[in-house]
Amino acid sequence: MATAGKVIKCKAAVAWEAGKPLSIEEVDVAPPQAMEVRVKILFTALCHTDVYFWEAKGQTPVFPRIFGHEAGGIVESVGEGVTELAPGDHVLPVFTGECKECPHCKSAESNMCDLLRINTDRGVMLSDGQSRFSINGKPIFHFVGTSTFSEYTVMHVGCVAKINPEAPLDKVCVLSCGISTGLGATINVAKPRKGSTVAIFGLGAVGLAAAEGARISGASRIIGIDLNPNRFEEAKKFGCTEFINPKDHDKPVQQVLAEMTNGGVDRSVECTGNIHAMIQAFECVHDGWGVAVLVGVPHKDAEFKTHPMNFLNERTLKGTFFGNYKPRTDLPNVVEMYMKKELEVEKFITHSVPFSEINTAFDLMHRGEGIRCIIRMED
Amino acid sequence: MATAGKVIKCKAAVAWEAGKPLSIEEVDVAPPQAMEVRVKILFTALCHTDVYFWEAKGQTPVFPRIFGHEAGGIVESVGEGVTELAPGDHVLPVFTGECKECPHCKSAESNMCDLLRINTDRGVMLSDGQSRFSINGKPIFHFVGTSTFSEYTVMHVGCVAKINPEAPLDKVCVLSCGISTGLGATINVAKPRKGSTVAIFGLGAVGLAAAEGARISGASRIIGIDLNPNRFEEAKKFGCTEFINPKDHDKPVQQVLAEMTNGGVDRSVECTGNIHAMIQAFECVHDGWGVAVLVGVPHKDAEFKTHPMNFLNERTLKGTFFGNYKPRTDLPNVVEMYMKKELEVEKFITHSVPFSEINTAFDLMHRGEGIRCIIRMED
Ligand SMILES: NC(=O)c1ccc[n+]([C@@H]2O[C@H](COP(=O)([O-])OP(=O)(O)OC[C@H]3O[C@@H](n4cnc5c(N)ncnc54)[C@H](O)[C@@H]3O)[C@@H](O)[C@H]2O)c1
Ligand SMILES: NC(=O)c1ccc[n+]([C@@H]2O[C@H](COP(=O)([O-])OP(=O)(O)OC[C@H]3O[C@@H](n4cnc5c(N)ncnc54)[C@H](O)[C@@H]3O)[C@@H](O)[C@H]2O)c1
Ligand SMILES: [Zn+2]
Ligand SMILES: [Zn+2]
Ligand SMILES: [Zn+2]
Ligand SMILES: [Zn+2]
Repeated sequence: MATAGKVIKCKAAVAWEAGKPLSIEEVDVAPPQAMEVRVKILFTALCHTDVYFWEAKGQTPVFPRIFGHEAGGIVESVGEGVTELAPGDHVLPVFTGECKECPHCKSAESNMCDLLRINTDRGVMLSDGQSRFSINGKPIFHFVGTSTFSEYTVMHVGCVAKINPEAPLDKVCVLSCGISTGLGATINVAKPRKGSTVAIFGLGAVGLAAAEGARISGASRIIGIDLNPNRFEEAKKFGCTEFINPKDHDKPVQQVLAEMTNGGVDRSVECTGNIHAMIQAFECVHDGWGVAVLVGVPHKDAEFKTHPMNFLNERTLKGTFFGNYKPRTDLPNVVEMYMKKELEVEKFITHSVPFSEINTAFDLMHRGEGIRCIIRMED
Repeated sequence: MATAGKVIKCKAAVAWEAGKPLSIEEVDVAPPQAMEVRVKILFTALCHTDVYFWEAKGQTPVFPRIFGHEAGGIVESVGEGVTELAPGDHVLPVFTGECKECPHCKSAESNMCDLLRINTDRGVMLSDGQSRFSINGKPIFHFVGTSTFSEYTVMHVGCVAKINPEAPLDKVCVLSCGISTGLGATINVAKPRKGSTVAIFGLGAVGLAAAEGARISGASRIIGIDLNPNRFEEAKKFGCTEFINPKDHDKPVQQVLAEMTNGGVDRSVECTGNIHAMIQAFECVHDGWGVAVLVGVPHKDAEFKTHPMNFLNERTLKGTFFGNYKPRTDLPNVVEMYMKKELEVEKFITHSVPFSEINTAFDLMHRGEGIRCIIRMED
């Protein structure tokens, strides 16, 4: 390609300061270095994690920065040593990576790569500690190795999943983060059997994807639990058959669930980040065989507390990161699930805006409206 | 048999009062009622649970009572409706049962039978709320449905495992409780892979059996942790390759283990009943794939506390009851493991006394000497 090896000038949405609307700027995107790829982003979406680090409350702020990590694009050029990707490949960027060399990547059970595990504080590339973005020579920082709110971005090859080129990028771009996280939490970790009863705590994008995973697994009862009853109507589309708002009950929700299910649910998946919901999600599973899976990211001072007899009565508690999917190995198969119409992705996409209106996506999320807003880079 | 349907007079070791030496008495043992069997006990062993309920500190005392639940014997007669057992069958009594009808018995994952799950408060038979033991017409109470400190005892058919008649009862009698519990905790629940590193917290009978399970599973490092360094020498026979006494370190034992193992052990099995050890056993497993299994019975006010990120980093915590073995379905196979010389049982048996000296077994346990003391009923 004509641009390979050269700096590309393109548009990016830059966050100059915490909490201030993004502004579309012309940025310089340096060529990919060894084991890096430069990708033309076609579609990106907004996730709570972007908003959380953009607000930068209680964290070390890293600004100016280019956010964005749910996206789909096409490889523009590759750096030295990259053999698995070539210009023209269709890819999904991922906020966590897979080096294929470390003990985690070599373990069949883990996806927590030692080298490329999510790092929200780092604003530069791993290899040289530099940013690939700049404006007038001043660096603009990266976010979780992806920075997809830019027409071109540079990523480590381990954070890029090559997918079926026939998959529509305006749809499958949402499989980069939250949707796969919830889906995998159920399918890969909770593993409900056909006909079982599954409780989902929290009906945001992640929880709805967990419900979708339960539906795909053939669960016959999917009980959605949320403090916000506005979530219930939408959740029906994702297979939820019953709902509980803990505020409607004097009893603990564990007990409400035990009474509804003759002793407890078979599986539960917690997608709230709230410590009380985490404890409830564990204590509501049936003794003898119940499995609870934690997905939500807790407050740093949170403490998980329960009576140890709850474990001895043969309950299992697990946590998951990115739904236990290995980004490069497994994401292409999640895309295939969509291509085979097993997984429904369209229902997660409730809004769409051109790149110039990216701040509208922030407003929608702020107001809790919809699930995913697609940002069209070329419009 | 000549005795079928009749009361049998025989010797039993009766606990008249909490903490007082047992006294050998002549008792009347009534015939088995519907779904019950009467068994001639040949060998029995003493377990901490007998001592705990004999001391009856902080529980509702149930006296006079006949203790004992680790044993081997031969069916003398069967009650109405019993089709799976016949006089002459070799059996192991079990303190928890398997009715084969309830949701737990029907689940492949659970062994916590709704009908016959351990009940330490009940001193009578399920069917009619009566005891089958009496002296001069006054009832002597049962213990956990087994009461094996008697030449004859009556049990629910669901609490009796039929085993290979060629298995030596003086050896396999110890497979009734603690040894199978520890063994199954590792083999059935922790499931270490070949070549992995396993930590065992607590090197009593249960912990040594858990270590034996790790050895059988092909673990290459088995790290024994105990506050009592006297346990270490013996533990070598059970496959332990390294030892930690938490008292020898200023750092938390989780950290000592992480440093010894490049980040954490692959599996841990907690066999102490101590809440601190339970938390340590969980926090010492490797992120990404570590599994911790709780076996020890905690204090009723104990609280399990940890930071939820320890779960989100892909650690699993499970508890087990009786090593997840279904008593009737699975114990015969544990006996077969011994017959095939995969499982070594002899090393658990450190003492042996005639029935008349049963109180010596209590003294040995009190002094923490040895692992299992066999009580020979016919001597
Ligand atoms: N583990 C991972 O890899 C990963 C990846 C992405 C997101 N996450 C985490 O998953 C969680 C959910 O993400 P999301 O984008 O769906 O968030 P969201 O805010 O859209 O949804 C959370 C839902 O939980 C509900 N909720 C909050 N507290 C509750 C309680 N106590 N009981 C019941 N419902 C309660 C809220 O009302 C809301 O509807 C977050 O904590 C996020 O950080 C984890
Ligand atoms: N879950 C079940 O089905 C089942 C069945 C039988 C026994 N158990 C339980 O298993 C546990 C072990 O039984 P056992 O007969 O082997 O007991 P035991 O008393 O012989 O052995 C326990 C060992 O743990 C050690 N220990 C205590 N606190 C410790 C700590 N904080 N750190 C390290 N080591 C510590 C002791 O020094 C001792 O050597 C008990 O709690 C018992 O009730 C459970
Ligand atoms: Zn790796
Ligand atoms: Zn995200
Ligand atoms: Zn049952
Ligand atoms: Zn026992």
